[in-house]
Amino acid sequence: MQEKSVVIIGAGISGLKAASELYKLGYKSCVVIEARNRVGGRLQTVSGYRGAKYDVGASWHHDTLVNGLFLEEVSLPKEESAQFVFDDDVAVTFDKDYGRVDQNPDMGLELLMEELMKFNELQYFGGLDVADVSYFETIVKYLYERRNLLTDDQIRYIPQMARFMECWHGIDWKSMSSKCMEIAHQGRNAYVMNYDKIVNRIASSFPKEWFEMETEVVSINTEGKKAVVRTNSGKEYSCDYVLVTIPQSILAHSLKPEPRKGRIEFTPPLAPTVQKAFKKAHYGALGKIVFEFEECRWSKERSRGLSLGKSNADFVSKTRNADNLQALVDELNNDTSYNFKNGEPWDFPIYFVNLAKHTDVPSILALMPDPLTTHVEAIEGKTKLYEFFQPVLTKLLAAFDCTEPILADFDEASKKSNHQGPVLKNIFTTKWTQDDYTLGAYSACVPGDDPLDLVLALTNNDGSIIRFAGEHTIMDGAGCAYGAWESGKREATFIAQKMGKM
Amino acid sequence: MQEKSVVIIGAGISGLKAASELYKLGYKSCVVIEARNRVGGRLQTVSGYRGAKYDVGASWHHDTLVNGLFLEEVSLPKEESAQFVFDDDVAVTFDKDYGRVDQNPDMGLELLMEELMKFNELQYFGGLDVADVSYFETIVKYLYERRNLLTDDQIRYIPQMARFMECWHGIDWKSMSSKCMEIAHQGRNAYVMNYDKIVNRIASSFPKEWFEMETEVVSINTEGKKAVVRTNSGKEYSCDYVLVTIPQSILAHSLKPEPRKGRIEFTPPLAPTVQKAFKKAHYGALGKIVFEFEECRWSKERSRGLSLGKSNADFVSKTRNADNLQALVDELNNDTSYNFKNGEPWDFPIYFVNLAKHTDVPSILALMPDPLTTHVEAIEGKTKLYEFFQPVLTKLLAAFDCTEPILADFDEASKKSNHQGPVLKNIFTTKWTQDDYTLGAYSACVPGDDPLDLVLALTNNDGSIIRFAGEHTIMDGAGCAYGAWESGKREATFIAQKMGKM
Repeated sequence: MQEKSVVIIGAGISGLKAASELYKLGYKSCVVIEARNRVGGRLQTVSGYRGAKYDVGASWHHDTLVNGLFLEEVSLPKEESAQFVFDDDVAVTFDKDYGRVDQNPDMGLELLMEELMKFNELQYFGGLDVADVSYFETIVKYLYERRNLLTDDQIRYIPQMARFMECWHGIDWKSMSSKCMEIAHQGRNAYVMNYDKIVNRIASSFPKEWFEMETEVVSINTEGKKAVVRTNSGKEYSCDYVLVTIPQSILAHSLKPEPRKGRIEFTPPLAPTVQKAFKKAHYGALGKIVFEFEECRWSKERSRGLSLGKSNADFVSKTRNADNLQALVDELNNDTSYNFKNGEPWDFPIYFVNLAKHTDVPSILALMPDPLTTHVEAIEGKTKLYEFFQPVLTKLLAAFDCTEPILADFDEASKKSNHQGPVLKNIFTTKWTQDDYTLGAYSACVPGDDPLDLVLALTNNDGSIIRFAGEHTIMDGAGCAYGAWESGKREATFIAQKMGKM
Repeated sequence: MQEKSVVIIGAGISGLKAASELYKLGYKSCVVIEARNRVGGRLQTVSGYRGAKYDVGASWHHDTLVNGLFLEEVSLPKEESAQFVFDDDVAVTFDKDYGRVDQNPDMGLELLMEELMKFNELQYFGGLDVADVSYFETIVKYLYERRNLLTDDQIRYIPQMARFMECWHGIDWKSMSSKCMEIAHQGRNAYVMNYDKIVNRIASSFPKEWFEMETEVVSINTEGKKAVVRTNSGKEYSCDYVLVTIPQSILAHSLKPEPRKGRIEFTPPLAPTVQKAFKKAHYGALGKIVFEFEECRWSKERSRGLSLGKSNADFVSKTRNADNLQALVDELNNDTSYNFKNGEPWDFPIYFVNLAKHTDVPSILALMPDPLTTHVEAIEGKTKLYEFFQPVLTKLLAAFDCTEPILADFDEASKKSNHQGPVLKNIFTTKWTQDDYTLGAYSACVPGDDPLDLVLALTNNDGSIIRFAGEHTIMDGAGCAYGAWESGKREATFIAQKMGKM
């Protein structure tokens, strides 16, 4: 049995930040236990074709007016911080059949999106007891109530345009809480090149010896004023505080009896408030795909693309003729059921980042929501992946002014081709849904969820020596790298104050 | 002495709506006293060259998701309601020297405007005691704090771009409260064709005999349970309730001893809370100019234009080199002082509506803030007005793809010219600043103002038989036609409830 001040479980950015802060506060005896063979957790930088680096977890500094991690980064000497670029842009948006639908003054879809967001918000102003519904239902309600004020094209394309929110939350419109759906951006977003530099900076700010890598924690027992942490390698730590930073998806398994990788057995079990809060907390699966080309053969003018799920002309007549909202919701729900059988990517919105614009890497990064993520992350092999995405990728490049056909040549050693169009050299996806230590991407809300419940259940426990950090334990920056980072700092401060070190 | 149930002072939309509601509720004996020879107040529709109609007061239904007047209009048979069109658009924006600056992916000014609005909002999150500053100061603060994250062009054009808010509030950036500056749009804006139809609909919904036109109220005496209203024609009304709907600018004169047109002497004087609230309430002067052409010779693609106040390259170096915010504020304040001596319109933002797009009338409507409004409304004669606006109008038409020179021909009877470019046939401005019964346009906030104070002082007085309505007496819809309309309805309901008629 080793004695430690604090045992930190998880070397994601919240655990690393907590360790870093504790070290700065004078702690000499901590351990950071990490199940994987790498630090960073859901911040992960990988190398692609010819060594270009991509973040397959978080890619941006969000909310840069208030993002503490970003503000720390910009205060550092240039060589110590990760480069970034403000890359927000209005998305070049296209529909399978119609083509470009963005920035069309006659359709005005961008303005309608603002109206829809406000419509959604106003629904819940009536009182605290207004029942949460899915984002899908809210969209249908908006179309129904405003149909006399909308053109046919607007009724047809608003729903699919509105689904871009799926690419933020990593869940589809029918699973998404409309009450918790809106994102109040606190400043521009900055694309990070790359997060590994930040992760490594923080990870090297405390002693290497604190790390215990490739080790799972199997149990935490609170015994009197100490906690005992046991690992799958048979080690035992007795400590004053434990900081649990594993993802919400894995922590949820502590509430179920079945054993599984990464599951921690808590004795006594997690508090009833936590158990209750988990019933109102869900987890999404934002997936990414990287398309690497030999050279950029498309326009670098715009940094964002958005392919819409296929629209349906029947939406218009059905919406116009409906005499009952619920019947319309049910009808359109049937019309928009998902089907992966066609082997086509047109059932979901896909958000594209034209990396060529700001990073000079001739690649396209794509973001997709679940259940598309689960489907795509299970596809094996570059050829099959390309087959799936080829129609939408071709349309995207056309929207970026490139009409030459794509040549797929996944042989990295092959000579440069004479092909005039874009040559696709590599394609890969995230595997977060298949990752035993993640099981998806980050917290997300389904109708009826209240993320505040879980945050309070995990943090509003002044007397507990079992502490929690991570993107799911904080409201400001929820789901973001900086929120996780802030939560690690919060817990380090809490522990140090309680132990009289501050 | 005539006995009345309710005396309504002012036949603007709040007074008309109140009268209409009272009549619906069964009132038989009311009077609506109006100083002008027309109803509508600051809703005024005038005819231009060849009979085209323009609203020189309010022109839009704002906040169409929650605008009760709009929602009433769309519920009416088509022949009874005024036509409207949703005409929002991203403004084609240009600077005197640079040319077009909107929708430029490398400058991203539209995205920066969102960041600036959020920056402004966040300033006041720190606590209720954060001192309000001018919008100008906030902009300089933003530039100063974020200068390392902004390009030179962004530092140069953000300030002028940000000034488009002046065209909403009718006051300039240095007079504008940054705390009260933001507008939370509740849905799209709809351009009304024209408001006279709405005004006439409401004005004809109660007996004509209620109107007492071209009559000023000179005093209101509260004597026991009745009020006595005296007019400049020597009439006296004794009534249960008086509803005062005169503009805030005129009501303010009741607090000063000097006599003037439209001033009402209250006995006893207005409550101390009202007197105090008026110290935190100001009034702006949004002005309009109409440019009428023989034919549309410019693009109808876009409905909005925005000419920026002239930018200053020195802004960049001064902002980059500053080591003290207050010194920078003072310096830039000097650099941006106003000067009408040049006879040029480049000191202020001017917002343009391309009426050709949605109404087929070949005219441009422009909106301007004070003090430009006061300056322009005092210019006499079409030729002098055109001289003043010619540089900016030429640039605007160029931004709308028309590079042929403008020919000004104000002779309405002259034959159609052979001129290939646009032929300007008429030009006129509002005269609200010179109008004794308006003295500007509508309520506006300077730093330190709290509009809620005045609203509460005028409405939160359950026992008073002197009631108030108008755009300055309501928070939802403040400064808007629908807010005024709603306040009239509110007071009619209040009076009827108090008098046991509901």
